[in-house]
Amino acid sequence: MSEPMDYASAGVDIDLEGSAVASLIGALSKSVRAPGTPGAPVDLPGGFGGLIEFGDNLLALATDGVGSKLQIATALEQWGGVGIDCMAMNVNDLLCVGAEPIAFVDYVAVPKPDPAIHAALGASLAEACRLARVTLAGGETASLPGIVTELDLSGTALGWLPKGQAITGEHLDEGDALIGLPASGIHSNGYSLVRKIIEHAGLSYTDTAPFEAEHPGRALMRWTEGAPTLGEILLNPTRIYCNPVVDLLNAAREGEGFAISDIHGICHITGGGLSNLLRLHPSLGWDIHSPLPVLPEFQWLQSAGGVETREMYRTFNMGMGMVIAVDAEHADAVLSWLQERMEGVAIVGHVRDQGHRVKHAIEGVEFSHY
Amino acid sequence: MSEPMDYASAGVDIDLEGSAVASLIGALSKSVRAPGTPGAPVDLPGGFGGLIEFGDNLLALATDGVGSKLQIATALEQWGGVGIDCMAMNVNDLLCVGAEPIAFVDYVAVPKPDPAIHAALGASLAEACRLARVTLAGGETASLPGIVTELDLSGTALGWLPKGQAITGEHLDEGDALIGLPASGIHSNGYSLVRKIIEHAGLSYTDTAPFEAEHPGRALMRWTEGAPTLGEILLNPTRIYCNPVVDLLNAAREGEGFAISDIHGICHITGGGLSNLLRLHPSLGWDIHSPLPVLPEFQWLQSAGGVETREMYRTFNMGMGMVIAVDAEHADAVLSWLQERMEGVAIVGHVRDQGHRVKHAIEGVEFSHY
Repeated sequence: MSEPMDYASAGVDIDLEGSAVASLIGALSKSVRAPGTPGAPVDLPGGFGGLIEFGDNLLALATDGVGSKLQIATALEQWGGVGIDCMAMNVNDLLCVGAEPIAFVDYVAVPKPDPAIHAALGASLAEACRLARVTLAGGETASLPGIVTELDLSGTALGWLPKGQAITGEHLDEGDALIGLPASGIHSNGYSLVRKIIEHAGLSYTDTAPFEAEHPGRALMRWTEGAPTLGEILLNPTRIYCNPVVDLLNAAREGEGFAISDIHGICHITGGGLSNLLRLHPSLGWDIHSPLPVLPEFQWLQSAGGVETREMYRTFNMGMGMVIAVDAEHADAVLSWLQERMEGVAIVGHVRDQGHRVKHAIEGVEFSHY
Repeated sequence: MSEPMDYASAGVDIDLEGSAVASLIGALSKSVRAPGTPGAPVDLPGGFGGLIEFGDNLLALATDGVGSKLQIATALEQWGGVGIDCMAMNVNDLLCVGAEPIAFVDYVAVPKPDPAIHAALGASLAEACRLARVTLAGGETASLPGIVTELDLSGTALGWLPKGQAITGEHLDEGDALIGLPASGIHSNGYSLVRKIIEHAGLSYTDTAPFEAEHPGRALMRWTEGAPTLGEILLNPTRIYCNPVVDLLNAAREGEGFAISDIHGICHITGGGLSNLLRLHPSLGWDIHSPLPVLPEFQWLQSAGGVETREMYRTFNMGMGMVIAVDAEHADAVLSWLQERMEGVAIVGHVRDQGHRVKHAIEGVEFSHY
């Protein structure tokens, strides 16, 4: 057996990315927009960015791309899900501050315009807008043969919330219940490692998946007959959590058995896996004692790639795409509300005041930095 | 002498781009957000997109990238201006509907994170935020070695305006004065052709510019001593028109000698050059009888590339980056207001009700479609 695979060996240097981003942020001066004027930045305790003032409301922007998952879509010429991935990566981030996504714009870079790609992207973005309940408010297609060798897709989502009702993590407390929302698949992170494992296993994306792909509460996006192929599982689009999370926020704001102040934190599990939770609070810890079932593709990827368990949980969502931290007294009410609207939602753990770390039920799966 | 160069021979197929974008738009369904709710799309007579409802206000999104100008920046390792280009391409579009830009997010795709590039981009974006008076509300850096071979930079700007005060072109009329705002250089369009001409001329970006680069009212961004190099002229950042156009809109809304209803149309001259004007109205024409002085780089590019005059005006801004169409009776007041704040502003022509075409003082420079 060769060396166990990890994210860094798949060509992604998280530390280098961090220092590059720090260089960019470090060069930015303070905003030129004065407090109280439209566009003035809002400093949140949790260190979240992207919120700006707008009268009695706050507006939030999120920008992200689909990343190297696109390379599998392009290899298979199946772009039907990537618009949903692009939307999900952005709107799910907006939900985390308590914002309702309302509009989206896409940015497409291609070496050469291709009506087939664009028609597929258009259909995918239209479905994404329906799922996220947002208006597609524009987009740009750039032909850049000297810069891109194949499709790149990113986008920006706009959301809003009433001033004073941002979810910031500042009310997180010992004993808060952690409600896990199931993932639809790998979502849009970790694909450099996924692609390396598939290559290592000598498999093709068009091969039948070498595992049982059925999983309760998720539907695969299919384009072949018969047993699902690896490509169909790998390209299953990222779950968009606007339904039910926007409705949850509205129900809370209307006081339907729980209040917006009972929702203490929302975390979108993306690159970095469970370590994302550490961003929500500077000192509290996260005890994931009852995790959601692991999706079968993660079990197979781990085995085929000989990936260490901790590395899996630092790279992938492992079946849980979003975590909502709720005041202990109202956790059952919020849980019931969510369970009526999404299959597979469960209490997966609790907030603990025993150090700034994530502890998972599996021995050795622990994170103290992201 | 070889064939005259044009934009299509430089590898850009505008028709193919058009049909690709049409495929994307065609696949999009109607918005899922109901009229009157935050995010509902606003249909404007002029066909402008990107505006959505938000209570008593409208919000506007614009998304665009720097394009192949980036290849020159990367070849010279000079990224100090491209953040300004990226900002300008977006905020100048927002101004055209009468929106004040308030926030911006950037999307950076690189084959590999590079702190030097990111530090330069951060400084450039910070300066761009200052010039455009917006908050940098976030950003994303993606490492995509399988998709991009060198830096791609795009962004999204958010703006707002009071409901009912959008500038739509619907009030344009025979006799409206056209006020031209000078460009700082080539801005961020036509660079495929620029690069082809430089190559054809056998010149290097580090060569001294083979023409007199001085031009009233613009400052070049310099990184060498002595006479300006070709690279310095080609990479001069796109002018950001927020100052003075946001102030003009505010002055008009406060009724300082002219009203917002006197500003009938605003056009950002981008790819397509003067033909962009045709988008503002379905039937009126545009008589550019007194154009602004042509910047020296355009004269040299035309001569070095043997480019036809009409093609130059369909590809480049030729020295005028923005046009404001103003009610005839108030044109002098608006002109004086602008001239006090920006050097080189002048009345360049008038709106004519003699067919849907742009007519320029130079014989043969005419456009009837874009």
